[in-house]
Amino acid sequence: MSEAFGNIKTFGIIGGDKRQLFLAQSLLEDGCGVILAGFGKLREHGFRALSGVEAAVLYSDAVILPLPSVRADRSINSPFSEKSIVLSEEQQALLCKKPVFAAMSDRLFRAYPMLKNASVYDYASRDDFAVLNAVPTAEGALELAMQEYEGTLWGSRSLVTGFGRIGKALARRLSSLGSSVTVCARKASDLAFIETLGYTAGDFSSLGDARGYDLIFNTVPAMVFDEALLRKTDKTALLFDLASLPGGVDFESAAALGIDARRALSLPGKCAPKAAGEIIKKTVFSIIKEGKR
Amino acid sequence: MSEAFGNIKTFGIIGGDKRQLFLAQSLLEDGCGVILAGFGKLREHGFRALSGVEAAVLYSDAVILPLPSVRADRSINSPFSEKSIVLSEEQQALLCKKPVFAAMSDRLFRAYPMLKNASVYDYASRDDFAVLNAVPTAEGALELAMQEYEGTLWGSRSLVTGFGRIGKALARRLSSLGSSVTVCARKASDLAFIETLGYTAGDFSSLGDARGYDLIFNTVPAMVFDEALLRKTDKTALLFDLASLPGGVDFESAAALGIDARRALSLPGKCAPKAAGEIIKKTVFSIIKEGKR
Amino acid sequence: MSEAFGNIKTFGIIGGDKRQLFLAQSLLEDGCGVILAGFGKLREHGFRALSGVEAAVLYSDAVILPLPSVRADRSINSPFSEKSIVLSEEQQALLCKKPVFAAMSDRLFRAYPMLKNASVYDYASRDDFAVLNAVPTAEGALELAMQEYEGTLWGSRSLVTGFGRIGKALARRLSSLGSSVTVCARKASDLAFIETLGYTAGDFSSLGDARGYDLIFNTVPAMVFDEALLRKTDKTALLFDLASLPGGVDFESAAALGIDARRALSLPGKCAPKAAGEIIKKTVFSIIKEGKR
Amino acid sequence: MSEAFGNIKTFGIIGGDKRQLFLAQSLLEDGCGVILAGFGKLREHGFRALSGVEAAVLYSDAVILPLPSVRADRSINSPFSEKSIVLSEEQQALLCKKPVFAAMSDRLFRAYPMLKNASVYDYASRDDFAVLNAVPTAEGALELAMQEYEGTLWGSRSLVTGFGRIGKALARRLSSLGSSVTVCARKASDLAFIETLGYTAGDFSSLGDARGYDLIFNTVPAMVFDEALLRKTDKTALLFDLASLPGGVDFESAAALGIDARRALSLPGKCAPKAAGEIIKKTVFSIIKEGKR
Repeated sequence: MSEAFGNIKTFGIIGGDKRQLFLAQSLLEDGCGVILAGFGKLREHGFRALSGVEAAVLYSDAVILPLPSVRADRSINSPFSEKSIVLSEEQQALLCKKPVFAAMSDRLFRAYPMLKNASVYDYASRDDFAVLNAVPTAEGALELAMQEYEGTLWGSRSLVTGFGRIGKALARRLSSLGSSVTVCARKASDLAFIETLGYTAGDFSSLGDARGYDLIFNTVPAMVFDEALLRKTDKTALLFDLASLPGGVDFESAAALGIDARRALSLPGKCAPKAAGEIIKKTVFSIIKEGKR
Repeated sequence: MSEAFGNIKTFGIIGGDKRQLFLAQSLLEDGCGVILAGFGKLREHGFRALSGVEAAVLYSDAVILPLPSVRADRSINSPFSEKSIVLSEEQQALLCKKPVFAAMSDRLFRAYPMLKNASVYDYASRDDFAVLNAVPTAEGALELAMQEYEGTLWGSRSLVTGFGRIGKALARRLSSLGSSVTVCARKASDLAFIETLGYTAGDFSSLGDARGYDLIFNTVPAMVFDEALLRKTDKTALLFDLASLPGGVDFESAAALGIDARRALSLPGKCAPKAAGEIIKKTVFSIIKEGKR
Repeated sequence: MSEAFGNIKTFGIIGGDKRQLFLAQSLLEDGCGVILAGFGKLREHGFRALSGVEAAVLYSDAVILPLPSVRADRSINSPFSEKSIVLSEEQQALLCKKPVFAAMSDRLFRAYPMLKNASVYDYASRDDFAVLNAVPTAEGALELAMQEYEGTLWGSRSLVTGFGRIGKALARRLSSLGSSVTVCARKASDLAFIETLGYTAGDFSSLGDARGYDLIFNTVPAMVFDEALLRKTDKTALLFDLASLPGGVDFESAAALGIDARRALSLPGKCAPKAAGEIIKKTVFSIIKEGKR
Repeated sequence: MSEAFGNIKTFGIIGGDKRQLFLAQSLLEDGCGVILAGFGKLREHGFRALSGVEAAVLYSDAVILPLPSVRADRSINSPFSEKSIVLSEEQQALLCKKPVFAAMSDRLFRAYPMLKNASVYDYASRDDFAVLNAVPTAEGALELAMQEYEGTLWGSRSLVTGFGRIGKALARRLSSLGSSVTVCARKASDLAFIETLGYTAGDFSSLGDARGYDLIFNTVPAMVFDEALLRKTDKTALLFDLASLPGGVDFESAAALGIDARRALSLPGKCAPKAAGEIIKKTVFSIIKEGKR
C-alpha cells in the first residue's frame, strides 16, 4: 500500500470487541484480506474466517490490535475469545517485522517490552481519530438523553460543559434538533466562537449555578459538578458525564441530592460499533497514506 | 378564559396515561386548577390531588378526556385507574353543561350518544395538534433508529417514504444529523420542495427498488413495502413503519425475507409523554383562544 | 422524448431575457438542439447559433416562449431583440402542430387566439415551478438585505410576513445565517409548523405592531403594512416587499414616516438568471416526463 | 468598570471609519458616555457630540483608537476628519494616564514611542476579536458571491481553501444555503473535522486541480492559486481572495487565463460596519472584564 509500509494486502486482527468485527468487515469490503483471531466464541454463530493468533501474526502484512489494547494480566483485550491471549516471544518477534497498529501503546509496551522494537503506530492517540470518534460519542449521548428524557430535545434547555471535540459535536446536534443550548468554556475565544455558532456562551469563571436546564452534559475531565454546583442544579435535570475517568461529576453528592446523574463512557463502542470500527480503519489508512509521502 | 368558554379556571382531567399527568402538571404550572380522576394506581406513589370522576365533572369549568378516548367496552381509557370508568347519565348531563376537550370524538359519541349535546372540542383532529406531534414522533423514530442501528446516523443513507408532517419533521432531523436523506413523494411540487430542502427526491411512480439504504422510515398509511418492493430492499436495512394502522409494510414478507422491520406507533406517548402532554395543553389553549375572537 | 410529445430533439426558444439564454445553454449541455430567436442584439457579442423566428418555429420539435410571455402590443417579450417580434398567422399555424411551453398562457391566448388550438403547456403556472423559484427569490432577498443592512444577518432580528413558498425558503435561510426570525401567519397549523421549525410564530390576527426588527420581508400579496402598522414599525427597520403587485406595503406612508421600504420583484431573473433558466428547463422536462406516463 | 481599569464611565473615540461611529452608538446605548473626535466631516450631516482630540483625551476615562491605527505619516487613521490628526506630546502624556484600547499597537508604538509607557490594550490582536470578525467577513464574502454569481448558492459547488476562523464561518454558511462545499486543509485532524461537519475534505498535499467549482474562496495567506493551479481551474469559476495581503492568488496569471479573480479585503468594515463596531465594543468590554478578576 505504500513504500514505508511495503505492500499491505492482508491485515491480522487480534482481539477486540464488535468494533474490530466491523473493522474486519469494512476491510474486506475494501478488498483487503483479513485474518481474525480471538473471536472463538463467535464460531458457533457461524462467523467465517476465524483463525488462531499464530496465523494472524504469521500470514498478515500488518497487525491491528484492539482498543483497549491489553488487560492488567498482559493478555490482549479479547472479550469474544474463549481463552486468554498472551503473545509468546516468537509471536512478538514476528510482530517486530511488520507494522503494528495499536491503541494505548504505552500499556502495550509495559506488557510486551520487546514490541518497543516493532513499528507500532498508535491509532488511538491521533487527533483525527479523536475528532472522528466525537461523532459516535455525541450520537450516543443523544441516544441516552432521548431514552431518559420524557420531553423532546426540541424545546428543551441543555447545558454542555466544555467545548473540545465532543462538546462541539454534541452542541451542534442538540441545537440542530431544537434544543436551546448553552455551552460553558473558559477561553474568551471559545466563548466568542460559541456565540457565533448560535449557542449561549457560559463563562466557567462565573458559573454560579446550573439552574434552568433539562439536560446537562459534562465533557470536562476535571471536577466540574462538585457538591457546591450540584446544590445549584435543578433536581429535575438529567446529568450525563461524558468525560473520561475520573470524570467531572461528584456522583455521591448527586445521589444524595436526588439528581439523576449518569456516567456515559465508551459510547462509540457501545452505541455505534460499526461506525467505531470504520473509524479505526480510516485512521489506519491515514497513517499508511502519510507514510507513503 | 374567554367569552365563548366562560372563565375556565379549573380543568377536570379524566383518564389517560402519562401524557395526561404531564398535561396536568403543565396546567398547574400555568396557574390553572386541576382535578385528576382515573389515576388511582398512582396514589400509593404519593401523587397528590387525586379525586373521583364525580369531583372532576362537578367542580371543574371544563373537562379534558384522554387519547384514545374510550375503549371497546365504553369505558374511558384510563390505564392508571384501579377500576373501569364508565360515565353515568348524571355525569354525562353535567358534561353537557361545560366545554369538553376530547380526542376521537366519533368514538366518544358512539359510546355516549348523549354527549352529542355537549360542546365537545376534538383536539386530536386539529391540524396544529398533528403538526406539533410530528416533533415527538420524529424524535421517537430517531431514538429507535439510534438504538437499533450499529452505525451512526452521520454517514448513513436513509429513505423516508411520504412527505407529510412526519416525513418533513423526520427528514429534517436525519439530514441535520448527517444522514444522506432520500424522500419519496408523489406530487411534482413535493418533489421540487424536497430538492430545495437539500434531500434527494425519489419519485414513487418510478420507485423500482429501495436498495442502498441503511435506514428506511415509512410514513405512508397505505401498502408501500409490499413483497415485491421488499424483495428489492437490502437485507441489512432497518425498516420502521411509522404509518398508522394498517401501516405500509408487509411484515410477514419482511420476516420471510430476513429484513428487520418494526412497527413504530404512538411514539409521542411512548418516547416523550411530557412533550405530548404539553402539546395537548397547547392545543386546548388554542381552541379556547380562537373561541375568544 | 415521450409518446405524448413525440420525440423532442430540438427546442426553439423565442424571446426572453438572460434566463432563456441560460435555459438554452443548459439544454445544449443536456444534448438537446436549440434554435434561438429574438436575441439579435447579442450577435455582435459573438453569441452563436442565432436564427430568426421562422427557423425556430419551423425546425424545432417544440417551442419555449419567455416569461413574461407577451407585451401589451402583442409582441413577444424579447428585450435582446433588435426589432419587435409579432407572430404571423403562418407561424401561429406552425406552432399549433407542436408542443408550446409558455408562461402566462392567458395573456398569450388574448394576443394570439389561434394558439388556443395549440398544445400549450404553461410552465409558470405549475406548483413545482413556483417551489423551485422560491430559492432564487429567497437568495435575492438575502442579497438585497446584505447589501443594505449595515449589521450582519447573524445577530439580527427579522420578521417574515406570510408562510407560503417564499416565506418558508426565506425564513429557513435567515435562521441558518443566525438571524432571530419571527414569521407571521394566519392558520393555527402554520403557526404550529413555524414553531416546530424553530422560528417565533407571530399571529396576524394579533399583530399589533412590527417593532423590534432590523429587517422585515413581506411575502403576502395583500395590504399588510398599511399606514397604521407602519406607524408601529421601527424607523431603523429595512422593509422589503417581495409580494407580487400590487404588493403589501403602503410605500407612500413608509416614505412619509421615514421608513426605508423597497419593492423587490422578479428576483430570480435579476439575481440568479442562470438558476432561473435551469428551473424553466427542469419544469419543461417534468411536463414532458408526466406526459410520458 | 473594574479595579484594574478604575471606573470607566466615558470613552474617548479618536478617529476611524463607520465602525467607530457604530461603536460610539452602541456604547451610548449601553449607557456609557462617548466623546467623538476626528469626525469633523460629519458635522454638516448633523452628527451630534463631536469634539476635538483635546477633549477626547482630557475628559474621558479611557480612549479607543481606530483600526487601522496610524497612517504612514504618523497621523491617526481618520477618514472622516477634515484635517490630519497627530498626537501632541501633551496628548500622549495624558494618554499614558488612562487605558488606551488600540489596534495594531506595534505600528502605534513606532509612531508614538512615548505610548509604550501607556496601558495599551490591543483589541485587534485578540483571538476573540478575530473569531467574532469571521462572521461579518463570511457574510461579506457571501454578499459578494451572490452579487457576482448568476446562479444560486443553492445547488452550486464551492471550494474553500483554508480552515481557520474564516474558512469555518464561510463553509458553514455556504453549506447551510445549499452549496456543495469542499474545504481544503493540511492537517489530518482538520480534514477529519471537515468531514464530520458534512463538507467534502480536500487535501492540500494532493490538490492537483481546482476544477468543478462555481465559486472558490481562498482564506490562506500564502500563494495557493499560483499559475500552475490556476491553469487547472475552470474559467467559469469566480475566485475570491479573502486572505490578508499579499494574499494567496496570482492575479496576473488569473487575468491572463481569463479567470474572474477578486481581492476581498476588510469585509467587516465595508459590508457590516455596524456589526464590526459592536465587535470592537464587545472585545473592549471583555478586556475590561478580564482585568476585573
